Amino acid sequence: MKRYETLAEDIAGSIRNGILRAGDRLPSVRHCSVSRKLSPSTVFKAYYLLEAWGLVQARERSGYYVLPQAALPQPDPGPVLAQREDQVPVVVMERVFDLLSLTTRRDAVPLASAFPSPLLFPLDRLGRITASAVQKLDPWSTIDDLSSGNARLRRNIALRYLAGGSPVHTDEIVVTNGALEALNLCLAAVARPGDAVVVESPTFYASLQALERLGLKAIEVATHPRDGMDLGVLARVLEQHRPRACWLMTNFQNPLGSLMPDEKKKALVELLSAHDVPLIEDDVYAELFFGRERPAPTKSFDTQGLVMHCSSFSKCLAPGYRVGWVAAGRYSQLVARHKLTMNLSVAAPVQVALAEYLEKGGFDKHLRQLRQVLAAQQAAFIDAIGRHFPEGTRATRPQGGYMLWVELPPQADVLAILEQALAKGVSFAPGPMFSPHGRFKNCMRLNYGHVWDARMASGLAELGRIACAHC
Amino acid sequence: MKRYETLAEDIAGSIRNGILRAGDRLPSVRHCSVSRKLSPSTVFKAYYLLEAWGLVQARERSGYYVLPQAALPQPDPGPVLAQREDQVPVVVMERVFDLLSLTTRRDAVPLASAFPSPLLFPLDRLGRITASAVQKLDPWSTIDDLSSGNARLRRNIALRYLAGGSPVHTDEIVVTNGALEALNLCLAAVARPGDAVVVESPTFYASLQALERLGLKAIEVATHPRDGMDLGVLARVLEQHRPRACWLMTNFQNPLGSLMPDEKKKALVELLSAHDVPLIEDDVYAELFFGRERPAPTKSFDTQGLVMHCSSFSKCLAPGYRVGWVAAGRYSQLVARHKLTMNLSVAAPVQVALAEYLEKGGFDKHLRQLRQVLAAQQAAFIDAIGRHFPEGTRATRPQGGYMLWVELPPQADVLAILEQALAKGVSFAPGPMFSPHGRFKNCMRLNYGHVWDARMASGLAELGRIACAHC
Repeated sequence: MKRYETLAEDIAGSIRNGILRAGDRLPSVRHCSVSRKLSPSTVFKAYYLLEAWGLVQARERSGYYVLPQAALPQPDPGPVLAQREDQVPVVVMERVFDLLSLTTRRDAVPLASAFPSPLLFPLDRLGRITASAVQKLDPWSTIDDLSSGNARLRRNIALRYLAGGSPVHTDEIVVTNGALEALNLCLAAVARPGDAVVVESPTFYASLQALERLGLKAIEVATHPRDGMDLGVLARVLEQHRPRACWLMTNFQNPLGSLMPDEKKKALVELLSAHDVPLIEDDVYAELFFGRERPAPTKSFDTQGLVMHCSSFSKCLAPGYRVGWVAAGRYSQLVARHKLTMNLSVAAPVQVALAEYLEKGGFDKHLRQLRQVLAAQQAAFIDAIGRHFPEGTRATRPQGGYMLWVELPPQADVLAILEQALAKGVSFAPGPMFSPHGRFKNCMRLNYGHVWDARMASGLAELGRIACAHC
Repeated sequence: MKRYETLAEDIAGSIRNGILRAGDRLPSVRHCSVSRKLSPSTVFKAYYLLEAWGLVQARERSGYYVLPQAALPQPDPGPVLAQREDQVPVVVMERVFDLLSLTTRRDAVPLASAFPSPLLFPLDRLGRITASAVQKLDPWSTIDDLSSGNARLRRNIALRYLAGGSPVHTDEIVVTNGALEALNLCLAAVARPGDAVVVESPTFYASLQALERLGLKAIEVATHPRDGMDLGVLARVLEQHRPRACWLMTNFQNPLGSLMPDEKKKALVELLSAHDVPLIEDDVYAELFFGRERPAPTKSFDTQGLVMHCSSFSKCLAPGYRVGWVAAGRYSQLVARHKLTMNLSVAAPVQVALAEYLEKGGFDKHLRQLRQVLAAQQAAFIDAIGRHFPEGTRATRPQGGYMLWVELPPQADVLAILEQALAKGVSFAPGPMFSPHGRFKNCMRLNYGHVWDARMASGLAELGRIACAHC
């Protein structure tokens, strides 16, 4: 990272943490330059960057001031908490597919999308690397790399775990067609039709679809919009229901954006270990952190091999390449067998391409840029929501990822709002998609992973107007 | 196809069909040149090719003679037919995986392999085309091509159906990670845990693994080594058991190599339509025909949308690319949803690469060469089996594909033979892998899709010696 970027990140962190507040004046360039031992031009560059991110504004002859993004309150734990913890058969397929086909229209402002903009990724560079790698493909690798995946790719994935301070054994890693397949294979490996599985409330609808496809029951456990699943409720559920597995995201959860602190992750692992219940950890957003370092996977606190850590390159590097993996602990062989009998292996060309990119593509440099863009886009979103949405609206301010959760006043009906918004060419993911009970009728998930531009700005403003009319 | 190749194919066809028999003398070069209106050098080239295929032998100053490959009898329907048609829960996973790990050792002569040699495929040309296609990849295709697959690839697949005289609608086609995934998705779409599904006897072990993973029961139906499933038995099973689906291969069945004639395919479709039972058709070998034209898919006789036709490019063009598809008739939307919730989509780079190859790669030229090589390798195998295997051995002589089925005398125990063969560095797929009851104890499947060379020849001779010692 360049020096001006480091400085900008530091200041952005202070703004997000509330140390610097709306209206505060940044230190003068001269003052900052002296105190930080940086050249004035470096400080200028950092301030320009903060301005581009929408975090500060220059006032003529006066300096840089923090913009009022902090005006929008974050949701309380209260209203987002689920009360019921029954086991329920999951029947969401029709509802979710109907909503997906409504909300993923290509002509709508893509606030509903589950994907960030593909323009944020180094697809040209990846294309060149793929081109080179596939022309060197060893024909025998098309037979030898079956099941667990290309050895070089798995070694490179293991190296990233090691560099992140959470070593896993290469043999634990099974390469999959994206994280979604990893999650599905893990679920199929540990649960049988009729079994109950703990999910977050709200939870990513793909987990509900997976449960439904496998004939499993869901137990929704209240999840805090800031620090994740309520472990008190979870402890009770583990006692009473003896679920077969727990499926959750501790880092920048979809749809809330919540981040579970390390101490809580540790407690989660201890709780699950005491009941010998495996954890299927969906960790696809961890690389998209806005803070100083990648949040730890829950797996790093696991000494029993109970955590199956699923991730992918789809959200942080290579959308459309469909390369994910799981480090499946004691379930590795079982998961590998499910993979082999389901579809043999991941395509060799994309595996060797990713291996080559990880070795020399400049992944970390790309990630630094991507994180900055996403943080700036989040700031713009929070600002626009604060200005346009009804009084009493709350929104999460995730410390990473590209999704945030908006809670409208209790009387709002997001399905009615969605109908009107779609007519105006704006889409979003309505709260009821994220619960087997169709809860969260006054909530929506917004994707800030698409480039912030005039169309996005007016789309959010339009959505705000429609929501105001409903409240 | 060049003229000498056409001539060689014609003569090879006559040998395979028994019009020309072992010991017959081919017409003299001069005679053939006059009668066929070809230059003598063209006829010479054709005869050289037939010699290279192991079909004829030159005798000095005398001419070319058909070699005694027809000496080996083909299996009777009798001994390969299963008698029981009970519904049985499938528990084969451990057994099959143990055998797979035994028999797929890289250092063994690969008679057990399920794959042809990767050296038979135009991987260099594919690599160049992939390189070009991936550098032109539209970033938005990584989002738009989800679920059913890349539109251009699906259109090209539909065009091949059309060219083969069996048109399907592009909308019916779902691109999958190889045919195995297509088969699995079809099965999951139509059957629920506890349901019974009809399979062939013997059947490809992957179908048994799929049934086991989904908690389904198998009904084995007797399958003729030459013309496929016994429809009389199937009719009885449909009446008595009301199975949820039927999974089979009518073209060059794995492991038998049997080919169901068109009339029988038509009768099969009528029978299934009368009972409204869907057919999951595994048709991955059809392009590898040795005759004049591609055998029709059973789907081409289906007017009800009951047949889900699964195929791939893995066996005929692009091993390791893991691109397959299903034309799923009335189940298309359901299968597409299963695909979407399982792993979203197939990797965009391999989809665009295959689309580009189909448009300008020279697929048909490659296929013609591949078929010739496989036919020649089969001839060499049949010859070697006839010379080295015990008296009373029978073997199928498939009209396509790269697998044949050997039936040793009834007292032979292939698992005991396998143990000794592995110690000598030779592997094969033992008969009991292909039955949920572990039947076919005196049978083996051999793969003739690897290059015929001295190692292969001595491997087969060694296997024959061991088999003789057991009989």
